[in-house]
Amino acid sequence: MSGVEFVKNAAGRLVPLEVNQVKQVPFKGVGKYKPSGEKASSPIRMCSDYPMDGNKVVDFLREALEKCGLKDSMTISSHHHFRNGDLLMNQVFDIVAEMGVKDIRWFPSAAFPCHEPIIEHMKNGVVRWVEGSLNGPLGRFASEGNMNGTAVLRSHGGRWQAVQDGEVHIDIAILAAPTADPFGNATGDRGPSACGLLGFGLVDSLYADSVIVVTDNLVPFPCIPWQIQGQNVDHVVVLDKIGDPEKIVSGTTRLTRSPDRLYIAELTAKFVQAAGIIKDGFSFQAGAGGTALAFATYLRELMKEAHTKARFIRGGSTKYLVEMLEEGLTDYILDGQTFDLDGVRSMRENPNHVNTSPFTSYNWHGKGNFASMVDVVVLGATEVDVNFNANVVTHSDGYLLHGIGGWQNCLFSRCTILPIPSFRNRIPIIVDEVTTLVGPGELIDVIVTERGIAINPIREDLIEATKRSGLPIHPIEEIKAEVDELVGGPPEKPQLTDEVIGVVKWVDGTVIDSIFKILD
Amino acid sequence: MSGVEFVKNAAGRLVPLEVNQVKQVPFKGVGKYKPSGEKASSPIRMCSDYPMDGNKVVDFLREALEKCGLKDSMTISSHHHFRNGDLLMNQVFDIVAEMGVKDIRWFPSAAFPCHEPIIEHMKNGVVRWVEGSLNGPLGRFASEGNMNGTAVLRSHGGRWQAVQDGEVHIDIAILAAPTADPFGNATGDRGPSACGLLGFGLVDSLYADSVIVVTDNLVPFPCIPWQIQGQNVDHVVVLDKIGDPEKIVSGTTRLTRSPDRLYIAELTAKFVQAAGIIKDGFSFQAGAGGTALAFATYLRELMKEAHTKARFIRGGSTKYLVEMLEEGLTDYILDGQTFDLDGVRSMRENPNHVNTSPFTSYNWHGKGNFASMVDVVVLGATEVDVNFNANVVTHSDGYLLHGIGGWQNCLFSRCTILPIPSFRNRIPIIVDEVTTLVGPGELIDVIVTERGIAINPIREDLIEATKRSGLPIHPIEEIKAEVDELVGGPPEKPQLTDEVIGVVKWVDGTVIDSIFKILD
Repeated sequence: MSGVEFVKNAAGRLVPLEVNQVKQVPFKGVGKYKPSGEKASSPIRMCSDYPMDGNKVVDFLREALEKCGLKDSMTISSHHHFRNGDLLMNQVFDIVAEMGVKDIRWFPSAAFPCHEPIIEHMKNGVVRWVEGSLNGPLGRFASEGNMNGTAVLRSHGGRWQAVQDGEVHIDIAILAAPTADPFGNATGDRGPSACGLLGFGLVDSLYADSVIVVTDNLVPFPCIPWQIQGQNVDHVVVLDKIGDPEKIVSGTTRLTRSPDRLYIAELTAKFVQAAGIIKDGFSFQAGAGGTALAFATYLRELMKEAHTKARFIRGGSTKYLVEMLEEGLTDYILDGQTFDLDGVRSMRENPNHVNTSPFTSYNWHGKGNFASMVDVVVLGATEVDVNFNANVVTHSDGYLLHGIGGWQNCLFSRCTILPIPSFRNRIPIIVDEVTTLVGPGELIDVIVTERGIAINPIREDLIEATKRSGLPIHPIEEIKAEVDELVGGPPEKPQLTDEVIGVVKWVDGTVIDSIFKILD
Repeated sequence: MSGVEFVKNAAGRLVPLEVNQVKQVPFKGVGKYKPSGEKASSPIRMCSDYPMDGNKVVDFLREALEKCGLKDSMTISSHHHFRNGDLLMNQVFDIVAEMGVKDIRWFPSAAFPCHEPIIEHMKNGVVRWVEGSLNGPLGRFASEGNMNGTAVLRSHGGRWQAVQDGEVHIDIAILAAPTADPFGNATGDRGPSACGLLGFGLVDSLYADSVIVVTDNLVPFPCIPWQIQGQNVDHVVVLDKIGDPEKIVSGTTRLTRSPDRLYIAELTAKFVQAAGIIKDGFSFQAGAGGTALAFATYLRELMKEAHTKARFIRGGSTKYLVEMLEEGLTDYILDGQTFDLDGVRSMRENPNHVNTSPFTSYNWHGKGNFASMVDVVVLGATEVDVNFNANVVTHSDGYLLHGIGGWQNCLFSRCTILPIPSFRNRIPIIVDEVTTLVGPGELIDVIVTERGIAINPIREDLIEATKRSGLPIHPIEEIKAEVDELVGGPPEKPQLTDEVIGVVKWVDGTVIDSIFKILD
């Protein structure tokens, strides 16, 4: 990014004014950036250019890419509902390489360790850069300055916003579908590679110039439900196997067995109770991490004791949430992705387990979204600073290893709680300043550690509500000091260059922080 | 339309090159007009401009209209799922009048006799013209040359196409919703004014600048299903009663008792059987008219005899179709509107009774639609000519009295059959030339009358398949001659001026015919 100007944004972070040749708006503060103009659009098509019998099946992936007019410098997108079990996108880029096409921007909703082979395609120029969550090896590759473009990290809602607002134009969307019909209607809730839903690919289907659905379970028209609508689809390709079911189901969806983390989870549930949040008609969201799952099981017990029923639970769904739905502890699960086979089954069979998308749940540039209606959300973090700013994408050593997911979007909940261990591998989690700013402190209300609970001073209501609870509530600085003393001081600063290898977008498309190259 | 130029289009019809100050493309032939450019869009919004608690309820309809910035010459749209039981839109225009606003274009998906009071608002200048299906009194008003703008008749798919392609920009959409939540999620399948679904209002919710949901059954968030998504909605208004349930359920959904029409229906079913269309996995669509319903009941018997199961039936659903679904005679009903309470119940309760929209079913400017995948469709007509061209909007006296509905869109079925009486009120239905051309003869395959069946000569396959069926198949000219002789000659030409009071759009947005003012 030589020659690019930098400015300090409203969070005091140095950010570039241009990324990948696209002008950027620096973060202006929560809710401060006012967008203008019209949403993006897609070309007008006509039915007589498509098979009138509705059969859009072509024999080979390469044929479909050729029909879509694939050429150098295009953007190919994909969704990540198969997580680390995706068998499709590596094949796609092998074919792109065979076709002699170069300089592709890959725009996945997230890349996983299984996509490590894409690194070879970046080295040989087939893929210029990956713009999406970079989990694991691809993040490491970017952190070491090896990617030919700048990483752009967006939340689930931010990805919808970016496509909707025309910041990212998708030439060809490739949508893996566990079940589809020849017309292109597709669903994730059934088939041998069932992944639950396809919401992360919905925006791609709506805005891309061309859309290819790839399935290993072709059914006669109509495929019901049609989570992806065939009227947005150009071609359908059938492969033997598009996903590895064992890896589609996330490995993170196991309850923690760590006594510390179980304690943190229990403390979180007790805090939610003490704050008066558990009442009939309330709502919550908890991620799929072990601590969040444990929180949900403690919460379930408290709800049963109090004879309380939630109006809705937001998923990522797991068997724990499905049991709550089936036990009548909630009217609905509003689900953005299913993390296990119980989630998939429930979504398929239970009309009260509802398919959502980043549009309904998270898009900041809509007429409202679900995130701000959730009473309490429980999330993770890699670091938190004394002003409650938090990081989820880099570690304290500066390596970019995680995507944002829905994390930024969820911060708009009425009460955002981060239950986190106070240190990991003897590295304190509460720091003076986060390595990468992903969530502004003003939106983060409570930190729960095994050494106590810290409430953001701006949430006087929560402080007041819980002051007689008997819970171990302390100023964040006190908890930090205690941990620093225990592990022998604050963590070392990461060894970074001044070269920007990635930026973090805020939910409104502005740049909230930069990610720097690791010093060799 | 003084000063406007006219041309003969590809169907030989004289059509204006400009309508309501908008340039028009004359009909070029089926599938011949190639659209270009991008779809329309809507303004980018942001969540912080909407209530973060998700409560968009405002107390009064007037307040909602004011918040939307209603002013002179705007376009207000609405859907017609309440049919003749709508209690909302007359109120809306009374309020518009109170506000002193003038020259509104009302863009309903259809207007019904219950909307006769809008005539007063046209006389006093509140409404400049109505652009949508004009059933009954409003059509008569237009036919007599009294409307201050030109009627523009579109099919259901054509209405989606016009909005999607930016031909019609909606300033404010007003969507009556039998059930809604404070966020604006809405459904038609439940509540005291249940109408089944809201698909005719879907395009309005996606493309209008502002969207107001009006309900008489407010439920806590989330309203499930969300046929209309709250993320597209600006305001929610609660009224005591938005629809008259008895009139929401269409009066047309009664089986015919006329022996002639029962015979026509039976003949139609036998033709479908003889043509080899009834086989496992086939599909059909039949409208809600008495003859079409009777056809469905005959077809049901033939299917049972043959132990045949359909893959899908397209609705307009009625109890007859619902019974077929429940008896296992079809896997799915793909439904565009429910015509009776059995249809509403089935849509609410049966996951195989599926909600569709004009986008999925009919939009010609998409990547395919469902209409062309239907094996056989059975439709009505007011007139048919010897070249199989047909009319559904005007009567032989020239009066515009009906909308197009999905009729034009359905012509793309693999076999289009019009079962019609050969005369009505002693006026022959088969004519030399239709008063108004709505459907080109090349898409109409079979006419079934009580005097025999006529097959379009271009359908050699159908002629061949049925030639040994023993069915009374005759050239259309023979049937016409027989009827003309019976009733004493062909019908009189309607008494019309050369003043155009309306145009009929083809499914691609081109103008296929003009409708002329009745001579005083």
